[in-house]
Amino acid sequence: MADVMTVEESVGTLADSELDRLNTYWRAANYLSVGQIYLMDNPLLTEPLRAEHVKPRLLGHWGTTPGLNFVLAHLNRVIIERDQPMLYVLGPGHGGPAALATAWLDRTYSEVYPQVSRDAEGMRELFRQFSFPGGVPSHVAPETPGSVHEGGELGYALAHAYGAAFDNPDLVVACVIGDGEAETGPLAASWHSNKFVDPARDGAVLPILHLNGYKIANPAVLARIGDDELRSMLVGFGHRPYFVSGDDPDTMHNDMAAVMDRALEDIAEIKATCPDRPRWPMIVLRSPKGWTGPKVVDGKPVEGTWRSHQVPLGDVRDHPERIAELERWLRSYRPEELFDAAGVPVPVVDSLVPVGERRLSATPYANGGLLRTDLRLPDFRDFAVHVPSPGATAAEATRVLGAWLREVMRANPGDFRLFGPDETASNRLDQVFEVTDRAWSAQRLPDDDHLDRAGRVMEVLSEHLCQGWLEGYLLTGRHGLFSCYEAFIHIVDAMLNQHAKWLKVTRTIPWRRPISSLNYLLTSHVWRQDHNGFSHQDPGFLDHVVNKKAEVVRVYLPPDANTLLSVADHCLRSKDYVNVVVAGKQPAPTWLSMPEAIAHCTRGIGLFDFACNDEGREPDVVLACAGDTPTLETLAAAKILRAELPELAVRVVNVVDLMRLQPPSEHPHGMPDSEFDALFTVDRPVVFAFHGYPWLIHRLAYRRNGHANLHVRGYKEEGTTTTPFDMVMLNDLDRYHLVMDVIDRVPGLAVRAAHLRQRMVNERLRCRAYTREHGVDPAHITEWTWN
Amino acid sequence: MADVMTVEESVGTLADSELDRLNTYWRAANYLSVGQIYLMDNPLLTEPLRAEHVKPRLLGHWGTTPGLNFVLAHLNRVIIERDQPMLYVLGPGHGGPAALATAWLDRTYSEVYPQVSRDAEGMRELFRQFSFPGGVPSHVAPETPGSVHEGGELGYALAHAYGAAFDNPDLVVACVIGDGEAETGPLAASWHSNKFVDPARDGAVLPILHLNGYKIANPAVLARIGDDELRSMLVGFGHRPYFVSGDDPDTMHNDMAAVMDRALEDIAEIKATCPDRPRWPMIVLRSPKGWTGPKVVDGKPVEGTWRSHQVPLGDVRDHPERIAELERWLRSYRPEELFDAAGVPVPVVDSLVPVGERRLSATPYANGGLLRTDLRLPDFRDFAVHVPSPGATAAEATRVLGAWLREVMRANPGDFRLFGPDETASNRLDQVFEVTDRAWSAQRLPDDDHLDRAGRVMEVLSEHLCQGWLEGYLLTGRHGLFSCYEAFIHIVDAMLNQHAKWLKVTRTIPWRRPISSLNYLLTSHVWRQDHNGFSHQDPGFLDHVVNKKAEVVRVYLPPDANTLLSVADHCLRSKDYVNVVVAGKQPAPTWLSMPEAIAHCTRGIGLFDFACNDEGREPDVVLACAGDTPTLETLAAAKILRAELPELAVRVVNVVDLMRLQPPSEHPHGMPDSEFDALFTVDRPVVFAFHGYPWLIHRLAYRRNGHANLHVRGYKEEGTTTTPFDMVMLNDLDRYHLVMDVIDRVPGLAVRAAHLRQRMVNERLRCRAYTREHGVDPAHITEWTWN
Repeated sequence: MADVMTVEESVGTLADSELDRLNTYWRAANYLSVGQIYLMDNPLLTEPLRAEHVKPRLLGHWGTTPGLNFVLAHLNRVIIERDQPMLYVLGPGHGGPAALATAWLDRTYSEVYPQVSRDAEGMRELFRQFSFPGGVPSHVAPETPGSVHEGGELGYALAHAYGAAFDNPDLVVACVIGDGEAETGPLAASWHSNKFVDPARDGAVLPILHLNGYKIANPAVLARIGDDELRSMLVGFGHRPYFVSGDDPDTMHNDMAAVMDRALEDIAEIKATCPDRPRWPMIVLRSPKGWTGPKVVDGKPVEGTWRSHQVPLGDVRDHPERIAELERWLRSYRPEELFDAAGVPVPVVDSLVPVGERRLSATPYANGGLLRTDLRLPDFRDFAVHVPSPGATAAEATRVLGAWLREVMRANPGDFRLFGPDETASNRLDQVFEVTDRAWSAQRLPDDDHLDRAGRVMEVLSEHLCQGWLEGYLLTGRHGLFSCYEAFIHIVDAMLNQHAKWLKVTRTIPWRRPISSLNYLLTSHVWRQDHNGFSHQDPGFLDHVVNKKAEVVRVYLPPDANTLLSVADHCLRSKDYVNVVVAGKQPAPTWLSMPEAIAHCTRGIGLFDFACNDEGREPDVVLACAGDTPTLETLAAAKILRAELPELAVRVVNVVDLMRLQPPSEHPHGMPDSEFDALFTVDRPVVFAFHGYPWLIHRLAYRRNGHANLHVRGYKEEGTTTTPFDMVMLNDLDRYHLVMDVIDRVPGLAVRAAHLRQRMVNERLRCRAYTREHGVDPAHITEWTWN
Repeated sequence: MADVMTVEESVGTLADSELDRLNTYWRAANYLSVGQIYLMDNPLLTEPLRAEHVKPRLLGHWGTTPGLNFVLAHLNRVIIERDQPMLYVLGPGHGGPAALATAWLDRTYSEVYPQVSRDAEGMRELFRQFSFPGGVPSHVAPETPGSVHEGGELGYALAHAYGAAFDNPDLVVACVIGDGEAETGPLAASWHSNKFVDPARDGAVLPILHLNGYKIANPAVLARIGDDELRSMLVGFGHRPYFVSGDDPDTMHNDMAAVMDRALEDIAEIKATCPDRPRWPMIVLRSPKGWTGPKVVDGKPVEGTWRSHQVPLGDVRDHPERIAELERWLRSYRPEELFDAAGVPVPVVDSLVPVGERRLSATPYANGGLLRTDLRLPDFRDFAVHVPSPGATAAEATRVLGAWLREVMRANPGDFRLFGPDETASNRLDQVFEVTDRAWSAQRLPDDDHLDRAGRVMEVLSEHLCQGWLEGYLLTGRHGLFSCYEAFIHIVDAMLNQHAKWLKVTRTIPWRRPISSLNYLLTSHVWRQDHNGFSHQDPGFLDHVVNKKAEVVRVYLPPDANTLLSVADHCLRSKDYVNVVVAGKQPAPTWLSMPEAIAHCTRGIGLFDFACNDEGREPDVVLACAGDTPTLETLAAAKILRAELPELAVRVVNVVDLMRLQPPSEHPHGMPDSEFDALFTVDRPVVFAFHGYPWLIHRLAYRRNGHANLHVRGYKEEGTTTTPFDMVMLNDLDRYHLVMDVIDRVPGLAVRAAHLRQRMVNERLRCRAYTREHGVDPAHITEWTWN
């Protein structure tokens, strides 16, 4: 099979009737697209176009739209011919009119939005609502049936497509990649996703690289390197590229149909033979930007240039000659041949619309909640660490979690995957490799560790790909967990934004069914970067996440292995959230038995009774903590206080569910003031040891009654390659400094405990000196126990 | 010239003495590297190795290090032979021992750190300090002379290299790209940077793709696709790749020397002939991971596998047989042939060390502050918008800035560039195209807009590339500005972290000279996304930035064009900061004359006197604002209050420099409480309209006396494609809601102004209804004026 099909080979393959059908359907979609951008009335041009029919604000992106309509028409054709389940992912999702035209033509739109009926009145509403206050966004959006991919930030189309294809063996995901988006990093990395696909178990992704040549004002790089270089690159990516290039509609339809058939035959052959490293087909479509739109405006070329990017004919209302030009443009699609007098598409258009769930806008793959089933979750209690007394048992929290995840993986072979940038073993979740492998379909060597084409642990050194694959997997109805070094999860800050926005909006759309939550496990965290250092220390993802809509985000800081199990079970059951869990991977004390852990996690916040000595009296000070390392240091401080200042009434509060700190008006998990006051008091000093940046606690609690007494220690951007205890000392989060904080804040203690305070200062100096001499923390730090 | 050089062609090209020199130098560097990871004493092995000579915590990354030493040795060779200025960028910067060994061998290390002398005692200190508390990080770090690139988050090596090469025509930047890093998105996008290089004006980047085959636990994708596919991909990226592959040192030295010569000859030829689209050379180096290290440990293969990634021989102290193994390993480099009895490198090693500024660790390109000269800045006052009275003149703030930037560009042709993802014109900075063009060396067509090989506006649809190029440009002593859509700047959150950490650390390193600040202009901001919508609305970068170390970050929200000019001038003069400026691009009122603007920006916060009516009395309410849209709405609210409740004493405070809100203990720009109290009062209600998420203001001001009276309006994640005024209404930031907030908060007004409050509610409903009917904001909103 030739690697590249020339245009010539394919000319003339379509029957005239087929060509007419494609062309007519395409004209209809293009007409509907121009109508959306421009018209608020007179949708069928039953009367001459007048200013009041035209929207006062012309918003939208025409440039990419006709090319998208072209692709979508051809997808419809092969879906019908082959009864092929397909999902589209439109990278140039700012071409919203194309997706909306498709959905209206295939009837789905009127089914989910009955007010936008499939007739003249509905067409008027389809046009009017587009990019209009109170209407629908100008981009492909959650409101658009058929899409799991928003026309927002560029870069994630191909990763989403692969995520959708995993574990969906019958599905073909047609992914349109704009030549602008192709310049982004995440998209550039996504090409290699094909090395993680198992042709037997996964579906196929059909990338369609759409070279319309221009971005907003610039040409696109891939459109300007020549076909030879481009082909070489795509072959290097492991693809068999087919080129379709030109601007004459008939020729282009002929070529595209031939190439589309060829690509689907290649896919069928790969699925039938399941070779190692199949050469997956892809299509390069080179067509003019703003194809079929105005060729020249104000004497300047528009079709085929960057000037088509948004609205090629601007200021129409105030320029009668432009109204005429717009009318000519609209009439060039010959609407009277596309729709009957009632505005209903004519039969030849309908003949290119698939039926039922095969319709691109009605496929359940694009509304994953329809396909989602709950995970079969083994009882996490069976994996509990035995805790005879608080802190008596050390455990690596993530390793304990790994044993449970192994059983989750075993029980859900078809719809649960782990994602991570080459860190599953480093993050101590490697027991999952007892039941599955790392997905890998490139070359394998004898000494490789748990690589297999059918593996369900997705490891690639790209947080973007991990996140994009997982999103695609969740959006099509499955489940997953992304484990990541804490500092580097910021790489996907922007992707998190887009997904959280998607979830926020879908909650208001009745026909969108809930999907599984996006679960993060952040480990190798800021406090334990012994091998790495300052560049690997950043707990700020929590700050980023809590800015998202409160209904959507949850943040958990389980202090030990048992609470981590309880939290993880909760997260894997939940829907439509972003759950962020932070947990350590190093050996650390387990504080709570499993029943205590469950009770604590259910409340989300509570006393560590074993560490409190304020029974029956008001505490003199509250020691609060969130996160495993801060909890350890807080308890060590509590022990010092108990020994040295036994008369001091100390209360220890631990926070697992960070959002409990907010008022209920701000977050659904928020505690009422009465509860907050009962825990933290309204007038006693609170010394709060926090895993992240200290300001986050203030930002959550600033409206609380006792806020003026709240003193927070956390990461203040001081770090380097050093020992664990030196790290907490560098940031004043260590036990000795917490004791000093108590002495400084409890009235009367400054004098009474001056000697103890000086001892704490000296202890810090001693530890620092010891560590600098010996390169390790002193034994009384590392071997410290609660009892 | 063949595209690919086979190994055979090059064998035997080196004289024996040359081979010996390379091999000896390489052995020395490898010995010094192993010593850093393992030894705290007995550096020259003058006595048998004992447990106490070995560090108790073994930290570091051996796997990549010998390959880096190999490359660095060969760079030294060509530097000496050709007197070629070179800068290295080590993508696998976690191989810190290699960079440190290089710097110690080339004497730079002892010059900047005299305590680490170039003798046995210094070698002991070099070893001991590595990855040791109080010592130096295990990664290449700001402390490492010779590097502008930290061994932190992966992905940015090649972008940094290109940034360093721009406008440095004599420089060759040798950029080692690990096969792990090559999987990241930013690196994958960076390959196309060669389309933005002008061979006449810019230096050359020599990418060296280092395939050592494995990441932490996984093989690397590019190491497992075969040479043919890899070559095809690299040719597709526009390169001429030369392959060097194997594990026998002599053969590899021969091949590498030949290929390195060939690559530098190619570069010389390209520089001499300056063709369009030159095919830049690059090197693919396939060598074993952990090369020359232990071959087998505990019966498992180590050299050449992922088990070499960090410390191949662990737990050495407690295992006598491992101590012996480590000693054998160290002695395999024959240290007695490398260093004299005093620990000084022998002459044959020295013979591969360049001299003076040609030394890789001493090149001024790696300490850009040495090369930096101040920008020649035209007087921004000359570009002022004339303001006869507050708000009387409308201007597009960024367009006004663009006129000044044009002159900055004109006055600084060799060391100032603009960076942005295809948005310079969209962001209305297009007057710069009167003096320069967009950099573009790929194919050009007649209708292209201001593309030229020598252009100095860097536009590519990758925020990662914009940021990475700019960082590389700044780190080598130049100046720049990154203009970006506000929402999508989150794409580089993680890169900002790494750069801010770099700046924070360099401030403590005396020999590092200050570099120009990293300047962001965020526009097309959250409040004006008429064309786009919810996915394009996110002001959270400010929250992200203020978590970084206070000495490093500055945030400015100029309310109009004149204040933007003043702020921009300030930012382009500054050093070692991250400056974030948020400004609108839409027509908006200009409030302050240039003298007023300068005074206001100098204070960073102050009264808008023209809008206050509290002269000579305590205000009843303070209206505060930060950001152009909030300022407009606040002034509109003030006007309503003045007209409707003339007896109410209203003060209007505008914030330009956001960090003024913090206490001076938290930020150098922080205001003392006395000033803050004088502006905001301690007991009057403050209604604060903020550009971003409202919690940020609370996070900055929670310690202030009047904080309990502070009520902040801002973006609360409500948005869609709609009109500007509908957007502020969706988030309760509109003038009418601000008036309602005042009525609700000033004691006594609730009853007295109940009627006005109801009118405000009705106004909102009327505006909403009008907008939904007509698709535009009502005229009384868009045509509103202050006077």
